[in-house]
Formats: sequence, C-alpha cells, structure tokens
Amino acid sequence: MATMTAAQKRAQTKAEYDAFLAACPSRKLLDRISDKWVTLILAALGSDGSHQPGIDCAGEPRSMRYSELSRLLAGVSQKMLTQTLRSLERDGLITRTATPTVPVTVCYELTDLGLSLHQMMRGLKSWAEMNMDDVLANRATYDTRVL
Amino acid sequence: MATMTAAQKRAQTKAEYDAFLAACPSRKLLDRISDKWVTLILAALGSDGSHQPGIDCAGEPRSMRYSELSRLLAGVSQKMLTQTLRSLERDGLITRTATPTVPVTVCYELTDLGLSLHQMMRGLKSWAEMNMDDVLANRATYDTRVL
Repeated sequence: MATMTAAQKRAQTKAEYDAFLAACPSRKLLDRISDKWVTLILAALGSDGSHQPGIDCAGEPRSMRYSELSRLLAGVSQKMLTQTLRSLERDGLITRTATPTVPVTVCYELTDLGLSLHQMMRGLKSWAEMNMDDVLANRATYDTRVL
Repeated sequence: MATMTAAQKRAQTKAEYDAFLAACPSRKLLDRISDKWVTLILAALGSDGSHQPGIDCAGEPRSMRYSELSRLLAGVSQKMLTQTLRSLERDGLITRTATPTVPVTVCYELTDLGLSLHQMMRGLKSWAEMNMDDVLANRATYDTRVL
C-alpha cells in the first residue's frame, strides 16, 4: 500500500474538518481565533520593530514582554490579556518564558504555528485601518437610505 | 504642490488609523470582523461552487440566498444570521437583493470591499481546519504539563 505524501495527508486532514459544521471542533477553533485580542496579540508578536523590545527580550524579534503587550494593546484589561495569552499558549501558538529577575520578566514569543497565523492577523488589522474611511462612508449612506 | 499618488494616499490613510489604540475607530471595525459568523459568511459568499446556488441566484457566483446561508452555516440562529448580514450590508461588504417572487427571494452578494476580505476569511477557516490536529495535540501536552 502506498504511503501518503505530506501534502496528501494535509489535504485529507483538511477534508476531515469543516468549520461550516456546528459540531466540528474547527468551528470552536475558528471562534477562538476570531477575536480582536487574539488578532492584535498575534499581529504584535513578530512585528518588525514597530515596538521597542525590552532589554530581556532583545535579540528575539518575535518576543515581547507582558508589560510591553499590555501597553501596546491599549485598553485591554489585565484579566483579558492574561486569559488570552494563556489560551494561545495552550493552543501552541505562543510560548511563555519566565526569567527569574526581580521582578520576574515574562516574555511571549510566537511558535511556528503562531507564525503561520501572524501574516493573516496583520492582514486583518491592516484591512481595518486601510478601509476605515470606506466603511464609515458606507454606513452613512446606509443610514440615510434606511431612515 | 505635488498631488499624492493613490499609493501615497493609501499609506497616509493607514498611518491615520491604528487598531492598537483603544479609541481608534479601526479597533471597533477589527472587533466587528473578528467574529466567527462574519468569517463564515464572507468565506461562504464567493466560494467556488462548493455550495449549490439557488435558481434565482444562478449565474452570480458570489451570490447566495438567505436560506442557503442559513443551511450552510449550521447552528447559526436566525436572529444572529440576520443581524450579522445587516451589519455587513451597512458596512458595505455585501449587498442584499430582494426579488418579489412568492415567497420573496433574498440574495446576498459580496461587494468589491467584501471580496477584498474574502481570501483572508477563507484563509482563517482553512487554517483552523488544517491545524486542528496540531492544536488538539498542543492542548493535551499543555494540560499534562500543568496538571
């Protein structure tokens, strides 16, 4: 019996899951990653120097400290940020490294799996920023038409 | 004074909005599109024949009837589907066309703006389906390590 190539295996895996189906686990995973904080965290990690990496995270371009993320993602509550980071760590999208400094330095870094979502998340963020004016204009037109 | 090229204008627009900022309208727009129903609707519309288009929507590959969407997005409530479609219409991502048959036929179609999100949304859906096994394995490893 012929063994499957990696590409065939991936194609088969894809066929097995279908997020259109309510009971499929991929529906829940899609729900998990369809979240603005997930998008912003995955867009922030691995960004190319638009943030100033902390001393302990220097030299690791995909790594950011908890405090840096907290500052960059303006308005996120500590609870929400911590929960979202833990969920991303559990899913294997980021790694968490605690360095025993005083106080403890906690760094987050994209895994290869997380990196595979990074471009899409940056794309979503950019899309919202690039098309904001069009969307505002569309809303104004719609509201005029409906009222 | 030199006039700006289209590319320069887009770059300037992008610089004006920043979804990392809590008060920026693009943060809310990012929140709006970071939603599993939005992802599934925009992935469904414009899909290449994986669904069977209804009679009244035939010949328009980016168009689907309400009833078709409702069936394809298994588990979505009528209220949620209607609200999400209205919001997408208001933002100018889809158009709604009612044909006066008995009963009325309502079709939804991607606009050019909606089409610009379609590939990303299909990408997100595919990502969830392709990487489901890896994520499940990561979760099992994490839970073993933590417990």
